[in-house]
Amino acid sequence: MEKILRGAAVVGQSGGPTAAINATLAGVINGFFSSKDSVTKLYGMRNGIEGFLGERMCDLGEIFADADGNLDQDKLDALITTPAAALGSCRKKLPKPADDPAFFENLISLFKKYDIRYFFYIGGNDSMDTVAKLTEYLRTSDYEMRVMGVPKTIDNDLQGTDHTPGYGSAAKYIATTMQEIIRDCAVYTTKAVTIVEIMGRDAGWLTAAAALPSIINGISPDYVYLPEVAFSMDAFFADIEKAFAKHPNIVIAVSEGIRFANGHYVGEGTQSGAADAFGHKYLEGTGKALEIAVKEHFGCKVRSIELNLPQRCAAHLTSKTDLDEAQCAGRTAVLSAAAGTTGCMIAYVRAEGDEYKISFEPSDVTKIANAVRTVPREFINAEGNNVTRECLEYIKPLIAGEAKSVFKDGLPVHFIIG
Amino acid sequence: MEKILRGAAVVGQSGGPTAAINATLAGVINGFFSSKDSVTKLYGMRNGIEGFLGERMCDLGEIFADADGNLDQDKLDALITTPAAALGSCRKKLPKPADDPAFFENLISLFKKYDIRYFFYIGGNDSMDTVAKLTEYLRTSDYEMRVMGVPKTIDNDLQGTDHTPGYGSAAKYIATTMQEIIRDCAVYTTKAVTIVEIMGRDAGWLTAAAALPSIINGISPDYVYLPEVAFSMDAFFADIEKAFAKHPNIVIAVSEGIRFANGHYVGEGTQSGAADAFGHKYLEGTGKALEIAVKEHFGCKVRSIELNLPQRCAAHLTSKTDLDEAQCAGRTAVLSAAAGTTGCMIAYVRAEGDEYKISFEPSDVTKIANAVRTVPREFINAEGNNVTRECLEYIKPLIAGEAKSVFKDGLPVHFIIG
Repeated sequence: MEKILRGAAVVGQSGGPTAAINATLAGVINGFFSSKDSVTKLYGMRNGIEGFLGERMCDLGEIFADADGNLDQDKLDALITTPAAALGSCRKKLPKPADDPAFFENLISLFKKYDIRYFFYIGGNDSMDTVAKLTEYLRTSDYEMRVMGVPKTIDNDLQGTDHTPGYGSAAKYIATTMQEIIRDCAVYTTKAVTIVEIMGRDAGWLTAAAALPSIINGISPDYVYLPEVAFSMDAFFADIEKAFAKHPNIVIAVSEGIRFANGHYVGEGTQSGAADAFGHKYLEGTGKALEIAVKEHFGCKVRSIELNLPQRCAAHLTSKTDLDEAQCAGRTAVLSAAAGTTGCMIAYVRAEGDEYKISFEPSDVTKIANAVRTVPREFINAEGNNVTRECLEYIKPLIAGEAKSVFKDGLPVHFIIG
Repeated sequence: MEKILRGAAVVGQSGGPTAAINATLAGVINGFFSSKDSVTKLYGMRNGIEGFLGERMCDLGEIFADADGNLDQDKLDALITTPAAALGSCRKKLPKPADDPAFFENLISLFKKYDIRYFFYIGGNDSMDTVAKLTEYLRTSDYEMRVMGVPKTIDNDLQGTDHTPGYGSAAKYIATTMQEIIRDCAVYTTKAVTIVEIMGRDAGWLTAAAALPSIINGISPDYVYLPEVAFSMDAFFADIEKAFAKHPNIVIAVSEGIRFANGHYVGEGTQSGAADAFGHKYLEGTGKALEIAVKEHFGCKVRSIELNLPQRCAAHLTSKTDLDEAQCAGRTAVLSAAAGTTGCMIAYVRAEGDEYKISFEPSDVTKIANAVRTVPREFINAEGNNVTRECLEYIKPLIAGEAKSVFKDGLPVHFIIG
């Protein structure tokens, strides 16, 4: 046990919103209320490090306290099921300490001004890079502060953790919506292809979740194409041909980031030369490009659906497992820091064996930042047009349980930090 | 009370799927189990009237009976929260009886073959047209059969009924998703416009629901544009300009069917001349067209989101009020027919006064078919860029309550009629 470090804490959210990032924040707030012997105050930075530089902060300890100064669990519950970063977000990449020491000196002077001794940053790859750089600089400084990262990304592409908070809820939304779209498409008897475009530029984890209903309810899209395997239009047409021999309604899931063997995105492929009346190039997306290609080749009814933002913000349908774990991760970050840990990200470690069990372990952040974890080739079938059962068994426990939103007059209630 | 007419019944689903059409079917099944003194059997036509002509039917009385021959409520509950037409659907418009009597003679011979004395058809405008034509023909025939329509359409555009089954659930999904998108878009501080395209070619009821959060949770999109008011690009740009003066993140809801004063769809407007590398014309949709226009005019970040099929099939988030009413309507159709009614659609009648109360009344189908009920001008503000509070108060009770889906391993369970 390290010596007690007394002082304020600051927490920020960064990168793209998710349906679980506020559950992680709730975990940090919860951890703060349990650590008041060392953590004296909890600031929330508005719009991440960018807002902190402008000293735009709120007092989370005050906002989430009841009349007696204890944690107001009702407020916290509402925060947990509120989508998108309640503190606001930013997309700022920090300079290297060696390149711009003045930047860090300025940061340290702000930490000193508010007596901030704990720094918590919730985010994905870029945010863990912020944690790593700040840790690096602090080694050369005599200012004592503990820095912790808490993972967040629907993409599930962070190294050093079994999975990431936010992924389970996004996967649950995608799998549920795929089931519903498959039902919807099954009502007519005419030949039709429906292409569902799912987020994921480099990693196909979200698209893989589209096949989850197959091991749970025995229904699934006909094919699933991930960015980890080079996409071939000829093989794609042959796949569709094969599916039409079995049934008239074909449903296909594709990652937005699928690329041809030459490295070109499928979405940009058919855009070449396409422009509107004003001469603007169309940026149409992968689903739309495939819709046009299939229509051209088969002449049948084709529809493309881009699941778009709801994949990351559909807080009305989240995984209880995901939100519970996200809270644990946030709380663990505070308790670990109070106990002396710094320079770490809270990693999810899955226990060996059949029973799903996760522990939360601080892990050196420099080994995590800036590396992308894609879907391993052995999780994808030989033809490259679907995922394996093993892949789905890995995802399945992450979507378990339904987090309960509070509804008022038919709509979910969101907690807004004013 | 009419004399008892003994014989079999047949029920079909037609037109576009909704999240409530199976609740209506469940109501018909429930009504059948209460009417066995007159209704001897309940056939389900597969793919509507089209499947019936090919004698593709199933025995719903058998499928939904438990071991003792009573109604199996568990199966029925699963059917209620299953999206899209469980019997399959079709888009067939019947000929006029005078134009093609042979078509109707063929139908009657099939009714005779299966001793069908009750005909229930669940659907929208075209389906009510089917009910009307069949009723018309039967007046000239000595075959005794009672024909009833049960409304269905997410568009809420049927005449003669306060609202339609399916609309409340679609409205709830749209309002909830808008809330979530607004949260998501609020996290950054850079100027951005998000355009959400909502279903509705001629009637703006679904798009109006996007503004519902304003009277429930005090948040709402900046503007709402319906097809009932001519769209002006200049006024649209001026509206955005005004909103930017207040905040950086603008969220806008538009009906897919908005048109310029000259009658051209906004979606087709900017498509003129646009073609891809193969020379195909782009059919890009209203949201995409506006995205391009706003990007051109303001140069800021713009995103368009098409809510697409989930609007009508998101059974994981349905209005309990909607599904309860849909069941009542289906059950009332059977009980009314057994009591002697024919040639009617079950209309929703809202009681006068502050308390929301609906009764279900058979109503002459010939007065309903083929007429579209759009959003009245007084439900839209003077500027034509939002709906009035009165409009939202009309919609609000329709989204009340959350229907409970059964989940297994994290995914909703659907009932599939094999």
